[in-house]
Amino acid sequence: MKSSFSGNLSFTIFGESHGSAIGVTIEGLPVGFQPDMEALRAFLSRRAPGNSPLSSSRKEADLPEFVSGLFDGRVCGGPVTALIRNTDARSSDYDTNGDGSQKSQNVPRPGHADYTAELKYRGFQDYRGGGSFSGRMTAPLCIVGGLCLQLLAQRGIAVSSRAVEIGGISGSAEALEQRILQAKAEGDSVGGIIEVCAAGVPGGLGGPLFEGLEGRIAQTVFAIPAVKGIEFGSGFEGSRLRGSENNDPFRMDGGEVITASNRSGGILGGISDGMPLVFRVAVKPTPSIGKTQQSVDIISNANTDLTITGRHDPCIVPRALPCMEAATAIVLLDALLERKKEEPWT
Amino acid sequence: MKSSFSGNLSFTIFGESHGSAIGVTIEGLPVGFQPDMEALRAFLSRRAPGNSPLSSSRKEADLPEFVSGLFDGRVCGGPVTALIRNTDARSSDYDTNGDGSQKSQNVPRPGHADYTAELKYRGFQDYRGGGSFSGRMTAPLCIVGGLCLQLLAQRGIAVSSRAVEIGGISGSAEALEQRILQAKAEGDSVGGIIEVCAAGVPGGLGGPLFEGLEGRIAQTVFAIPAVKGIEFGSGFEGSRLRGSENNDPFRMDGGEVITASNRSGGILGGISDGMPLVFRVAVKPTPSIGKTQQSVDIISNANTDLTITGRHDPCIVPRALPCMEAATAIVLLDALLERKKEEPWT
Amino acid sequence: MKSSFSGNLSFTIFGESHGSAIGVTIEGLPVGFQPDMEALRAFLSRRAPGNSPLSSSRKEADLPEFVSGLFDGRVCGGPVTALIRNTDARSSDYDTNGDGSQKSQNVPRPGHADYTAELKYRGFQDYRGGGSFSGRMTAPLCIVGGLCLQLLAQRGIAVSSRAVEIGGISGSAEALEQRILQAKAEGDSVGGIIEVCAAGVPGGLGGPLFEGLEGRIAQTVFAIPAVKGIEFGSGFEGSRLRGSENNDPFRMDGGEVITASNRSGGILGGISDGMPLVFRVAVKPTPSIGKTQQSVDIISNANTDLTITGRHDPCIVPRALPCMEAATAIVLLDALLERKKEEPWT
Amino acid sequence: MKSSFSGNLSFTIFGESHGSAIGVTIEGLPVGFQPDMEALRAFLSRRAPGNSPLSSSRKEADLPEFVSGLFDGRVCGGPVTALIRNTDARSSDYDTNGDGSQKSQNVPRPGHADYTAELKYRGFQDYRGGGSFSGRMTAPLCIVGGLCLQLLAQRGIAVSSRAVEIGGISGSAEALEQRILQAKAEGDSVGGIIEVCAAGVPGGLGGPLFEGLEGRIAQTVFAIPAVKGIEFGSGFEGSRLRGSENNDPFRMDGGEVITASNRSGGILGGISDGMPLVFRVAVKPTPSIGKTQQSVDIISNANTDLTITGRHDPCIVPRALPCMEAATAIVLLDALLERKKEEPWT
Repeated sequence: MKSSFSGNLSFTIFGESHGSAIGVTIEGLPVGFQPDMEALRAFLSRRAPGNSPLSSSRKEADLPEFVSGLFDGRVCGGPVTALIRNTDARSSDYDTNGDGSQKSQNVPRPGHADYTAELKYRGFQDYRGGGSFSGRMTAPLCIVGGLCLQLLAQRGIAVSSRAVEIGGISGSAEALEQRILQAKAEGDSVGGIIEVCAAGVPGGLGGPLFEGLEGRIAQTVFAIPAVKGIEFGSGFEGSRLRGSENNDPFRMDGGEVITASNRSGGILGGISDGMPLVFRVAVKPTPSIGKTQQSVDIISNANTDLTITGRHDPCIVPRALPCMEAATAIVLLDALLERKKEEPWT
Repeated sequence: MKSSFSGNLSFTIFGESHGSAIGVTIEGLPVGFQPDMEALRAFLSRRAPGNSPLSSSRKEADLPEFVSGLFDGRVCGGPVTALIRNTDARSSDYDTNGDGSQKSQNVPRPGHADYTAELKYRGFQDYRGGGSFSGRMTAPLCIVGGLCLQLLAQRGIAVSSRAVEIGGISGSAEALEQRILQAKAEGDSVGGIIEVCAAGVPGGLGGPLFEGLEGRIAQTVFAIPAVKGIEFGSGFEGSRLRGSENNDPFRMDGGEVITASNRSGGILGGISDGMPLVFRVAVKPTPSIGKTQQSVDIISNANTDLTITGRHDPCIVPRALPCMEAATAIVLLDALLERKKEEPWT
Repeated sequence: MKSSFSGNLSFTIFGESHGSAIGVTIEGLPVGFQPDMEALRAFLSRRAPGNSPLSSSRKEADLPEFVSGLFDGRVCGGPVTALIRNTDARSSDYDTNGDGSQKSQNVPRPGHADYTAELKYRGFQDYRGGGSFSGRMTAPLCIVGGLCLQLLAQRGIAVSSRAVEIGGISGSAEALEQRILQAKAEGDSVGGIIEVCAAGVPGGLGGPLFEGLEGRIAQTVFAIPAVKGIEFGSGFEGSRLRGSENNDPFRMDGGEVITASNRSGGILGGISDGMPLVFRVAVKPTPSIGKTQQSVDIISNANTDLTITGRHDPCIVPRALPCMEAATAIVLLDALLERKKEEPWT
Repeated sequence: MKSSFSGNLSFTIFGESHGSAIGVTIEGLPVGFQPDMEALRAFLSRRAPGNSPLSSSRKEADLPEFVSGLFDGRVCGGPVTALIRNTDARSSDYDTNGDGSQKSQNVPRPGHADYTAELKYRGFQDYRGGGSFSGRMTAPLCIVGGLCLQLLAQRGIAVSSRAVEIGGISGSAEALEQRILQAKAEGDSVGGIIEVCAAGVPGGLGGPLFEGLEGRIAQTVFAIPAVKGIEFGSGFEGSRLRGSENNDPFRMDGGEVITASNRSGGILGGISDGMPLVFRVAVKPTPSIGKTQQSVDIISNANTDLTITGRHDPCIVPRALPCMEAATAIVLLDALLERKKEEPWT
């Protein structure tokens, strides 16, 4: 019951990686909003596979068809539903263990949801390509987020992201890329750390307790497969500082209240303070690797080895960047819609 | 609109630190459940202030009065509302800047929600003692969580937590305590890192996307003031490993599927895998410190200095431990209730 | 999980008729709103028992204590919780069947929730005085509604109600009152029909499908015990007309679009059209009557007779009037808050 | 934000009458459920237009395509999305006022949502064919309801409906049909009253306040266009009886508790009592009629006449029958899923 994000903006992501389509149904987009479809496609292409030697060679056009909610190119009031047809699904990659003898659903891939999906769905899950656990499900998330980014831009808010670490090293884009290619060559994978920044966020968004921006961003970001950690502002390092070191002094700056530093990451008490919103996300190394791994056969209840074939990303970080921006934009738009509702009652 | 946790278990936390009462209204507790009030009080006392030289000397009995939802000591079906009266609020501590000349609401405390609450609530917030942003609001959270812990125990699930770092150092309980007292003596504060473990969690709880356990735990944990980061299993360190190093091999163990390591923290694809659930939380140093700090006067729009008096915790970590356990128990109970709904339809 | 109204305004009603308190926790009231407590008390007194020979002689002051959410008399941002202590509960009235031999919970009262509560809560319900099914639970509803009525008045919206039928007759207030007293004298009860009108409702509130005003008003009104029917505008009678008779012609009137008649009850397509909102509610005769009735003993599984003692209303309609106004105001305020969120995005 | 039904079962209906598709995204269907597609199509065909001289001659195959949530023909865990492509939309019918001079969106049709949609969506709505207010939106409702009916049948619950009045008369099916054809011949329309019955409903479903079955059924039924009233059991007539006449006596019958009559319509205190659930719905005469009507031009702000062309139902009642069954089934399934969650905690 929780493929849905429920707030002032609400949406449900549906589909399975190797089913007929994936997509999303969205409620709450401002009526009259005219999406820039060219910009949306450009945004989605950053997430799409097959565009780089760093990613899976699965080629999906990933062009969404909007089947409802738009009239004359503008949001007309009802839910907006967008579909992406699955056109290049090679289910056979998931049917065997290399020698054709084992179906992957019987031998769960380490680090994947194969085994836990089996527990949850009692054998009825669509196991092909990870089903509804596939990283492919972030394409609909990026449709929503891409639309939100356009709306935020109209309010002067810009969300950006970058890889600050890959496989434990930081450095130039070339160094990071090298790290990925090296892992790929070894039939292995690497993870990394992404930093997200939202500039232009007005103060006053969010709230205490479950309304806090950190919690809402965290829940949305953890919906992206492979995310295992998040920290805002000084985060884990800040926990090692004194209060006198970690507190951001308030200062006047041209008639505006600012903070002289931004160790809070732009959020105090769950509410934006007008400074840039900054957080970092830990992305685990892609669990699908070429190396043979230890697993079990859940039919025969016996230990076995597993060699995964198929097309996989040696590092998900580059394609995860737009997903992080999407998740951030979704929460910020949701908070902005809430803010409208909170405007003074007269 | 989000002082509420909404799921299969739902609750709304209400109250202000220096108002007449704080409390919580809970829906969804299993009918017939007989809370052990003695155990609940013992749990709440771990969070209550005034019990140790490490915490604020504010003394609150923090004994909840259950005004609805119980009959003959058992949950009878309607919402359970529990109140804690505020008996030792010294609002005057927040009225002046030491010399009686400045009200704290005009000079926001660095690192606190004073300034952002002003932005959000446009001057109408109850600024006394942090109002609804006070750490005191975790007492109602611990009421809910304390009840959930009792229900989880009936299913063999135990949640525990411990400080693994204080002020950047790890070590014996004495060393950590010493670190806190040292900061207190200097009129400063320290933060730390808490590790939470839930043992006995059955596999199959949670789900993909927004149903994932990581995201739901994160959102609940970030509702606790001072939390700035969270990581599951190998977390940020895991992002520096190879896939072949970070994946947990599946193995058979006495007829059960286990993982030979637990770098996933017991969660794959957002779903529990039957291994202990493990995560770590970064807690920032308490922003209220005795040292004079830089701030601004938001009435006169001028820079100023601020010296905070009043009773404050030099480190919130010890009192945050039961809060973390409470937050974890809440999400796990919510997931267990969902699991009942998901049982096969016949 | 549904003692809650969840919308842009949200609240949870809690308590049992003969427990220690009843009350409500409300989220979403506009920050800065200063409730007129005198007006609220006057509104609540219309619902309170003991004020007239037409109602139960149970005397409840029903003065709410606001324990959270107000600061300096204004809504300060967090949830508003109001309590009413139960001071005049005579549980013994429900303990026996007149001769002291039967507990009412074993012999369900016809037309009451006694039997169905037993089914739902498996014997754990607070059976005293109807527990959470008591008409007394409309007092918290009237607290919320009374606050909403004040907010609506600030926008020029007025909600009124009147009994248009009692026990099958219409006529003067005296005639209706006579009808009630006659039933009372006979140890019996009567029901009636209430008409509710909301004037000044702006056009554009509501929406299609589940957002429709009719459905939202219906769900809220059916939360009031004893309601068994609702019709908007021409309602059931309208179903007997031709389209050419039932359609309301649009006309210009002083530069405004109006309808020449109001058979729609002010709602087209689930959305207010700017005309007065009008609906009627069927209220069943109070099930608690003095006459001996047929029932069963659910312990011995045998037919038995039941004679109800205790204080009961011979007709609930007079006290239900403010409840209807409260329910209507709640939905309209919720729709107005939504409308703010829908304002053009620029 | 309320094209969604949110409960233990949740779904969002999307699409516009003359857009590219309509459909629904559903969460919460039991995993492993294998829909009988043949039975579903048969159910949908009862609602589809063009099948009878009593209905619009618009011909829509209305065959849903399931694009997600099914694997090997069974519900596999993720949201189920079904699409119906719009294949026979003649938008031109809505473009002119017969002489080609007036677009319908400038001259709202009396009794329709044209004018109120304009108010709500500020001119951005898809006005073609009623857009998201079209009766066509009940097709996705019937997809959900059709699936729910199959699940209910597995538990021995059967929902049926019949027209008890058409245009003010009751009588044989032939008499009712005659009444419709007569109105059609006159370029007019008629409404009617539908009675719905659910047999086999177990006791204990529903709850007090907003959890009550009456309110939940009412809200779902009012989502169907043209519904203007609903009454349960004795309903409005019951409000004219004495309590001694309207109360249903409890009796033992073969070891089971039953009621000797069913004036409550099977619901006491919002909870099913094990007797058949019975309610009646008032359906207004179709607002689209051939006769010339009075309206206004909202551009020129002048009175005008309107003659509607296009294909319309002279009476919506026959096609509304499956919609009523669908709405009822949805609420009952939702309540059954809730009941599973409420099972004793051990």
